[in-house]
Amino acid sequence: MSYIPSKKSEILKNIFYPCSQMKDYESQFLLEIIRAEGPYLYLKSGQKIIDGIASWWCKSLGHQHPRLKQALKDQLEKFEHVIMANTTHENLIELSQRLGSLCPDRYPDLNKVFYASDGSCAVEIALKLSLHSRKIMGEPKKTGVIALSNGYHGETVGALSVSDLGRFKKPYQDFLFHTHMIQNLPYVLDPQDPVWSNCESYWETIIPALEKLKDQTTAIIFEPIVQGSAGMKIISADFFTRLNQFAKTHGIHLIADEIMTGLGRTGKLLACEYANIQPDFVCLSKSLTAGFLPMSAVIMTNQIYEIFYDHDSSHNAESAEKSFLHSHTYSGNALAVSVALENLKIIQEENICLRAQNLQIKMRESFKNISDQTGCFNNIRGIGGIIAADLNLKNNQTLGPDFFNRAIQSGILLRPLGKTLYWFPPLNISDEALGEMEQATLALLIAESAPSQKDLMTRLIVNLLLD
Amino acid sequence: MSYIPSKKSEILKNIFYPCSQMKDYESQFLLEIIRAEGPYLYLKSGQKIIDGIASWWCKSLGHQHPRLKQALKDQLEKFEHVIMANTTHENLIELSQRLGSLCPDRYPDLNKVFYASDGSCAVEIALKLSLHSRKIMGEPKKTGVIALSNGYHGETVGALSVSDLGRFKKPYQDFLFHTHMIQNLPYVLDPQDPVWSNCESYWETIIPALEKLKDQTTAIIFEPIVQGSAGMKIISADFFTRLNQFAKTHGIHLIADEIMTGLGRTGKLLACEYANIQPDFVCLSKSLTAGFLPMSAVIMTNQIYEIFYDHDSSHNAESAEKSFLHSHTYSGNALAVSVALENLKIIQEENICLRAQNLQIKMRESFKNISDQTGCFNNIRGIGGIIAADLNLKNNQTLGPDFFNRAIQSGILLRPLGKTLYWFPPLNISDEALGEMEQATLALLIAESAPSQKDLMTRLIVNLLLD
Repeated sequence: MSYIPSKKSEILKNIFYPCSQMKDYESQFLLEIIRAEGPYLYLKSGQKIIDGIASWWCKSLGHQHPRLKQALKDQLEKFEHVIMANTTHENLIELSQRLGSLCPDRYPDLNKVFYASDGSCAVEIALKLSLHSRKIMGEPKKTGVIALSNGYHGETVGALSVSDLGRFKKPYQDFLFHTHMIQNLPYVLDPQDPVWSNCESYWETIIPALEKLKDQTTAIIFEPIVQGSAGMKIISADFFTRLNQFAKTHGIHLIADEIMTGLGRTGKLLACEYANIQPDFVCLSKSLTAGFLPMSAVIMTNQIYEIFYDHDSSHNAESAEKSFLHSHTYSGNALAVSVALENLKIIQEENICLRAQNLQIKMRESFKNISDQTGCFNNIRGIGGIIAADLNLKNNQTLGPDFFNRAIQSGILLRPLGKTLYWFPPLNISDEALGEMEQATLALLIAESAPSQKDLMTRLIVNLLLD
Repeated sequence: MSYIPSKKSEILKNIFYPCSQMKDYESQFLLEIIRAEGPYLYLKSGQKIIDGIASWWCKSLGHQHPRLKQALKDQLEKFEHVIMANTTHENLIELSQRLGSLCPDRYPDLNKVFYASDGSCAVEIALKLSLHSRKIMGEPKKTGVIALSNGYHGETVGALSVSDLGRFKKPYQDFLFHTHMIQNLPYVLDPQDPVWSNCESYWETIIPALEKLKDQTTAIIFEPIVQGSAGMKIISADFFTRLNQFAKTHGIHLIADEIMTGLGRTGKLLACEYANIQPDFVCLSKSLTAGFLPMSAVIMTNQIYEIFYDHDSSHNAESAEKSFLHSHTYSGNALAVSVALENLKIIQEENICLRAQNLQIKMRESFKNISDQTGCFNNIRGIGGIIAADLNLKNNQTLGPDFFNRAIQSGILLRPLGKTLYWFPPLNISDEALGEMEQATLALLIAESAPSQKDLMTRLIVNLLLD
């Protein structure tokens, strides 16, 4: 009995896709993946396309990395998953030691790791730990959370409450708690922008509202340096330095959502390092297993951990209230842990942070080329393994569902954010594959600007003649 | 450079364990797992213990199931994970078809599957879909949720809001939304209890509060038939039949949280079948990959799915508001999907539901034996692969952290819920291993009742002489 239908309507019969309008699937391609390797996806149709967004920002070392595969297989021969409470295993111990000393010089106190399976849950765990610590410490007024306008932290009720993207949030207001969103953020295109190192004029408009909230705030949550879902927007490092200072002055926790940025994507192990932010909590997920398996981690300071440690151990009601009872069935899943451990080794041994920094130089050159040849790019911006631009298409075309199809036809999987087109390739991508990304994107945008194709061809020829 | 320390304090240096008071780890055993197979865990110390709770209720087919391992390896040779939006793969299609027709005779409309990674998120997705559907359908007053007292649905803010176990929930009240909890539930010990099929006297006390909420309620969420974290409490099937009738009469959605009960644990594929509950949403997780990898699914009716389908496809603002934009990086993870698919095949081919029913008969006999020999059990209750009893220990001993140690010394991993001791073994456990569970539990409880050991020995000898 074969279960594999050939018609798209049959394939779609039982699936509700994430982050999608299912009607769009009638016209959009549905790519049947049969194999993947490095930056490439191989389709049943025979086509080979480049995964230009590292499969929603997670495949930091590409598909089918041989060392990660081997680590998974080795663990599979021992055991796949055992309840974490009261147990441990060799790879869990080593992974925790590595995560618990990620930036030992800069963050010597970020030592304690709590494991879960997805990014949203990591954010919720950090929020819960922050609020719970106030109850234990007798600071009942500190119940509020401050976040950044345009921020995105996930899809569960707590994570959505601290997010600011209306399209994800609006229908669920009845479930959400209120969060103060910092407005007028000092966005920059890159660290060369003067605002990167001095955002005083912005800060003056930001600080009055924060001052009013200082006594009733338990935590400030933010995507450090780069806001992903907002459209790869880069924020002044100086803003975070000032925010850090404000939080430390008033005993407010800092929750760094490094789910997208962490483990090398921005060219540092943690994006927080760019502004010497001293977070109390760091949330990691997407690149933690290099996109192999669901896993997330919250790294917190010893000071936070100690608040929950019941030194009395009297086992009375008060002691019960000190325990953080967040349960998660798959915490410490041995398969995910083993892949994450090997991933951290590769990041260190292959100096993935440096590769991300070099990648920025190459990608910026590519984006400049594309911009020169098509005239379609505004506001080119980037850091590390992220590059983005706002599309300036002729005839005010919008990036509807057909854009996805045309990108696939050009050989690249892209998923623009509003009008922002971005690349988010595996950090170990080869120069050759990067060249293919450039060619595919160029072909797409030339086709996209078809009404003025003649002009473009002229410009292309001029460029060629000038070379 | 070896990372593996020998001292417990070094092992614990970087880990914050889930659902734990870390102080307890000073005195509790920390089991270093080196291998697991079937119902057994093998420790570095050389000890072999039985996983009496299927590693937090997820290892439904035990550890290292050869078919599940093979399915994982086969997929690993193709690809491990590709962004799900706009893609598909053979195993995802087949898994969705199987999940989308799980109980085709009884639930012909439960056809659409949304994937995530953990149980809490499945609950949040169902809650969000329910509320969002009201906005689309122009029912803005339907914003409330009704749940069951003693219920547990997970740890994220939305899941906690609809849970009723104070110890998990209390410190986070500032983040939670209000939920009406149904009180005075008709608990039973087994389906032979008359209240199982008629709970009228209870219902009369329950219905007035529900009637008041009928116009402002979007969904009722519940663990069908068995409340897990509450202490394996079994609820009258008639209660759910009446609740179902109430919800259908007033257009209120039913969210069946089958995260613990689903896929055979209670002796049916869905516990909902016991009361012919007609859910709009079913949440699955723990046993979905048989405890191999994090994965969850929300199965919903076609009617719900259709509400979000933008038949106009005009791509205007209104159409955007119809889209369910819940994103989840690891939705459709190919490794987890492939294990889940093989798991569903095994459940069908090996008639795991029937095995769970037979397991109940054997476990009940074991618990009766233990009760007879120790006098420690009150309220023995169970269904399918779940059996529980309230411990009645001499000298009012509480089940402190030392109880865990003593259970391990007896050869079994147990994690009592308050005073409730339960077994939740793999559903394919052998009679021999079940016998070992009985012996280990018996040894534990005899030791536990040490003050009256002389009496017990006398009773044991009497029992032996009577045999």
